[in-house]
Amino acid sequence: MPPVLGVIRETAPGETRVALLPEHLKKALAPVKGGPPGWAGVVQAGAGERAFAFDDAYRAAGAEVVPDADAVAARCDVLLAVGPPGADLIGSMKPGGVLLGLLDPAGGGDHLQACAERGVTAIAFERLPRITRAQKADVLSSMSTAAGYRAVLRAAALCPKFFPMMMTAAGTITPSRVLVLGAGVAGLQAIATARRLGAIVEAYDVRAAAREQVLSLGARFVDLGGVSSDAETAGGYAREQSAEEQARQREALAGVIAEADVVITTALIPGKPAPRLIDAATVERMRPGAVVVDLAAPAGGNCELTEPGATVERGGVRIDGPVNLPAELPVDASRMFGQNALAFLEELRDDGAVRVDLDNDMVGPACVVHAGELRLDAARAAPSPAPTEEAPS
Amino acid sequence: MPPVLGVIRETAPGETRVALLPEHLKKALAPVKGGPPGWAGVVQAGAGERAFAFDDAYRAAGAEVVPDADAVAARCDVLLAVGPPGADLIGSMKPGGVLLGLLDPAGGGDHLQACAERGVTAIAFERLPRITRAQKADVLSSMSTAAGYRAVLRAAALCPKFFPMMMTAAGTITPSRVLVLGAGVAGLQAIATARRLGAIVEAYDVRAAAREQVLSLGARFVDLGGVSSDAETAGGYAREQSAEEQARQREALAGVIAEADVVITTALIPGKPAPRLIDAATVERMRPGAVVVDLAAPAGGNCELTEPGATVERGGVRIDGPVNLPAELPVDASRMFGQNALAFLEELRDDGAVRVDLDNDMVGPACVVHAGELRLDAARAAPSPAPTEEAPS
Repeated sequence: MPPVLGVIRETAPGETRVALLPEHLKKALAPVKGGPPGWAGVVQAGAGERAFAFDDAYRAAGAEVVPDADAVAARCDVLLAVGPPGADLIGSMKPGGVLLGLLDPAGGGDHLQACAERGVTAIAFERLPRITRAQKADVLSSMSTAAGYRAVLRAAALCPKFFPMMMTAAGTITPSRVLVLGAGVAGLQAIATARRLGAIVEAYDVRAAAREQVLSLGARFVDLGGVSSDAETAGGYAREQSAEEQARQREALAGVIAEADVVITTALIPGKPAPRLIDAATVERMRPGAVVVDLAAPAGGNCELTEPGATVERGGVRIDGPVNLPAELPVDASRMFGQNALAFLEELRDDGAVRVDLDNDMVGPACVVHAGELRLDAARAAPSPAPTEEAPS
Repeated sequence: MPPVLGVIRETAPGETRVALLPEHLKKALAPVKGGPPGWAGVVQAGAGERAFAFDDAYRAAGAEVVPDADAVAARCDVLLAVGPPGADLIGSMKPGGVLLGLLDPAGGGDHLQACAERGVTAIAFERLPRITRAQKADVLSSMSTAAGYRAVLRAAALCPKFFPMMMTAAGTITPSRVLVLGAGVAGLQAIATARRLGAIVEAYDVRAAAREQVLSLGARFVDLGGVSSDAETAGGYAREQSAEEQARQREALAGVIAEADVVITTALIPGKPAPRLIDAATVERMRPGAVVVDLAAPAGGNCELTEPGATVERGGVRIDGPVNLPAELPVDASRMFGQNALAFLEELRDDGAVRVDLDNDMVGPACVVHAGELRLDAARAAPSPAPTEEAPS
């Protein structure tokens, strides 16, 4: 009997993604020549429909479609989920089974405790180390790519001006000025997308190394004139800055922000509240019609006025606080999630069986519950497990 | 006393544009050296606020701000409006005054009759001839440019996939396929914007001459294999096709439409219902998640399922029927409108005074009411007055 992969319908409000599309299951179910036998697949009815992947397509890929999530949980050896499932569902899983997904290990939900109690191994993509061979499974980067792209579409939709320059018989329309704060994966994708649309783009990051990447995308790197010191960690992420550093930076950035038509903020420090980059006084200096899209909304926002899940207006400036941008791109976000998940699944096979090898340099750091124990600190202490500076949104 | 320009706050639902921004009034009010003296300006309070142009800015430009539209109408020699004002307001205008705007001369509203009764001259931008020297005043083209750009933003927002190709560590995400039907000004702008965003773009137009323009934007021209005959009028617009031609074309296009992730339709024949390019059976052949943005929605739609002002879903295909896309871009749409309007105003000056010269090759064709008489047929019969194939949206 091949081991069984389970796919459920996500239950978080507004979620549209599914952990595996039929195209991924088809690959997973096929035995690799010279490799381990394929998986079997059990999929909850309706699991992919919000990503336009319907039950028939899962059946055609070779999976069995069952009516409810409990039936999936009870039958599978590895349960794939985009976001954390409820503790009840985990209680239906086989002891010794594996739960794999974006499990929000820093969020304090009760699902990890439920895994420990049930003897389920929990593997959180958030804790995947940033090593080269783990890149193919890097869900956080994939989702940040989707978030950066969608952030620009939202900003362009809210902006009362063209992004590109327009030459008309009556005169020239100047392009919009877009400022991107934070040049991690989401920020770089936002820069690239805003450039594609023809905007003039500037970007800022506390990590000096981001400069070259920003320039290579055709954007200007904002120089705060010695105000900022380099704040890159050994793992390549932004470290938290002191209150004084943050205040100086905020002050220096305010003038640049005031000139922008659009500001997209992406600054997140893992496990901490989002750094405050834009305070209410700076919003007042912005011109009416300007737009802020705050990707840090789920972590409290980079802008003081951000309300998660809403678009608010202050003095003609619209501040948008999206909480799940990848869910706005259900097909391709699911496609990337599934590609990453398939890559990770290869690390969980030992010939025919599922095996959790804590010495595996991808599995060990990402494993947050095993054999009845929470491993949150163990995972943190593992080599290069630094979580990213960008939320999975 | 210089002649007086009047600007009102538009009253159509969802309208955000204003006919002149403060930057335009500033230009209009300044006397041109060696030319006629400048205008005076009277602006209704709040006229520009939805385009982020506030009363203080109009005052700073030299205009007088008055509390209501009637006061503007009573004082001005030329009243500028984006859309047709109500008959009541026209009744407040000075006899002999001029009303200039997108006056919907084919729409059958009672405002033109009101102009005739009041002795007001009505000049409709829709009737501007397509001659080279009139291009600087071509409001329809400007608004179609805005509409084409915004149509792509709406399509990208509704599309569950990336427009551009994405290279990731786990694999490649293929770009979206965008099909643009109708390659007039709005269609060409839609092609250019979708190409900017990285989509694979195809386009079709009944006018053979559109082919080169489509190719020059990096899109593929859809060849229906001899099904279509050239349907260009002498004025460069699309002529109405026979029912049989339309049916053959619809059939041949259905296969192309079924392969698209996004279809943007822009086909309009002036004064006629929009041609039906996509019937319900074709929508059924489209894949779930596909998107139709129908710019012909105000004229009944190019798609059988379009509902003006709404986004409907059928079998996972979303059909969007926007009715005023330029209003989604209030600052730049107003900027273009104002630039065009300023250019036209030069045709209405004779030294210090306002003069309607029906022999002027811009003024004559566009003048739809003069000296108490409707001139709808006269304007139609004038040389090259052909209205465009695209709605002003």
